[in-house]
Amino acid sequence: MRCKRCRAKPIVLKLPRHHTALCADCVDHYVIDQVERAIRHYRMFRRDEPVLVAVSGGKDSLGLWDLLDRMGYRTTGVHVQQGIGGYSTDSEKKTRAFAETRGLPLVIHDLAKEYGGGVTEMADTSRRNACSACGTVKRYAFNKIGRELGFQVVATGHNLDDEAARLLGNLLRWQVDYLAKQSPALPASHAKLIRKVKPLFRLTEQEVAAYAVLRKIDYVIDECPMSHDAHSLHYKAALNQLEHQAPGTKQFFYLEFLRRQPLAAAVAAEEVVLNDCVRCGEPTTGTLCGHCRVVEPLRQAGRADPASAPASRIDEDATAPSSPLEPATPVSPISVDWV
Amino acid sequence: MRCKRCRAKPIVLKLPRHHTALCADCVDHYVIDQVERAIRHYRMFRRDEPVLVAVSGGKDSLGLWDLLDRMGYRTTGVHVQQGIGGYSTDSEKKTRAFAETRGLPLVIHDLAKEYGGGVTEMADTSRRNACSACGTVKRYAFNKIGRELGFQVVATGHNLDDEAARLLGNLLRWQVDYLAKQSPALPASHAKLIRKVKPLFRLTEQEVAAYAVLRKIDYVIDECPMSHDAHSLHYKAALNQLEHQAPGTKQFFYLEFLRRQPLAAAVAAEEVVLNDCVRCGEPTTGTLCGHCRVVEPLRQAGRADPASAPASRIDEDATAPSSPLEPATPVSPISVDWV
Repeated sequence: MRCKRCRAKPIVLKLPRHHTALCADCVDHYVIDQVERAIRHYRMFRRDEPVLVAVSGGKDSLGLWDLLDRMGYRTTGVHVQQGIGGYSTDSEKKTRAFAETRGLPLVIHDLAKEYGGGVTEMADTSRRNACSACGTVKRYAFNKIGRELGFQVVATGHNLDDEAARLLGNLLRWQVDYLAKQSPALPASHAKLIRKVKPLFRLTEQEVAAYAVLRKIDYVIDECPMSHDAHSLHYKAALNQLEHQAPGTKQFFYLEFLRRQPLAAAVAAEEVVLNDCVRCGEPTTGTLCGHCRVVEPLRQAGRADPASAPASRIDEDATAPSSPLEPATPVSPISVDWV
Repeated sequence: MRCKRCRAKPIVLKLPRHHTALCADCVDHYVIDQVERAIRHYRMFRRDEPVLVAVSGGKDSLGLWDLLDRMGYRTTGVHVQQGIGGYSTDSEKKTRAFAETRGLPLVIHDLAKEYGGGVTEMADTSRRNACSACGTVKRYAFNKIGRELGFQVVATGHNLDDEAARLLGNLLRWQVDYLAKQSPALPASHAKLIRKVKPLFRLTEQEVAAYAVLRKIDYVIDECPMSHDAHSLHYKAALNQLEHQAPGTKQFFYLEFLRRQPLAAAVAAEEVVLNDCVRCGEPTTGTLCGHCRVVEPLRQAGRADPASAPASRIDEDATAPSSPLEPATPVSPISVDWV
């Protein structure tokens, strides 16, 4: 069967929700077009603005980095080394290889070096679900590292499946205040917060995977071993089942929500007041931030002394990055290194 | 294993969302309790008020009729003979048998006699989805028959699975105006509308089925043959999958929605103006009501002349019903008979 767009080359990907099927070149064109539309519509970043890209080593984040680089954006990657055994070693390795091959700057944030333990240990000591602990610490790191390195925006590889699953979860549990905050582009609502954007939100997981494979990106295929029972996976499975029966369900569900979101925001709206965390000084709605609630028990367990532990490593053979702005203040307590 | 409530008899039903498991007697107690709570909380009907019960012949509606009768309410059944081959014949037969055994009054509304064709023909001639056409015509019949026979309320057997699936569908398609109307108790918002209530909304399909089996009710087990691809079945399957992974998901999703519903209603709220349908005079938001849009093409197809067709049949051996109020005006165009 021939591509329905160019009518020349053989099909590699069916897109039932768009009533079409595309060849490799047209998949590439389609993916870039969707990302461009996302960036433009939400004014995610300017053409000349340095962008921090959060990279796990999976298809979504490496696909996103590859896309933004090809589209001419000035990107720097940031990778959180979670310390989850072979999975994390492999993730860091593939992320480093990607950055090195393209000569792109990469920041590695190593949890074990920073806090004396990785996600597993943090989840244990703080008695939190691993995914929740990991998410809290990663969001904190992306914001703080980004800000301290002078970035005003961090991009993550969340795709349509991620966002639709999150929306379903928020609705099933009627977390109305979360609904108001679920956007592909969150503004910097506080002096210490940088913007968060999700340029892949118009593309399904399958589409991003197809892009990554066609671009021959060497990404980590395995799911994180801690996530096997994550609610989000169940929500994704339920939505995939409904999508199979009625193509377009997922896209309509999320994009129509976005069109109606000002309504949801108005319903939820209580003005959120952000305070400085009493321990680390980062913005929080309470007194001790989520990050400190996750990492403090680990620190107190005496597995590390943050004052003395070297928080990062320097690769001697590192490619010199085209750094954006220099941090205004010394980076602390998070330290970074450059590949 | 022993019942977790009475600790005496063997378990017949597990209720993971309530962290319990019950014996036959305690299932009976639980079901009645849930129905009583539903009726009381929503003030569905008074103790002395005649209630019209919409009965399809399935477990939910016959279970509901059985429950309300046992609980001492004055009930009359209304059954729509849909004309879907053996399925409908069987449904009418089991409904009649149930009514006769208990000496309960039953109204049969035969679509083929009324309109010259059943649901299949209506769907064909009006080019509507069969489930949509059937729903429209049934809701119309329940309201009109009820009102003309002097009832102020009609009860249907919708359970928690039905309501949660409908809510999920409305959210996936962001039908916000439908959300505002999704309640277990709809008031009579117009002089020609009677109240609609759903006393089983706190019970899952499985729980109602267990009740019907334990009560030895002879109900139609097959699903309607027209419904095999109904969206609602897919939504139910998706929710059942999520429920299996996290018991209580379905109940929290629907009951928490109900607690927050005034909010949804406020968001959706446009004042709805009801007009008299230009053809039949029943309330409609447009000029020609949904019912007339479904049945007119069938009538025009000349398969029946509504003026001359006998709209109902009288069973000579019918049990004399304890009729509620007599209709104020002659019943037309819907005619009824009594079992």
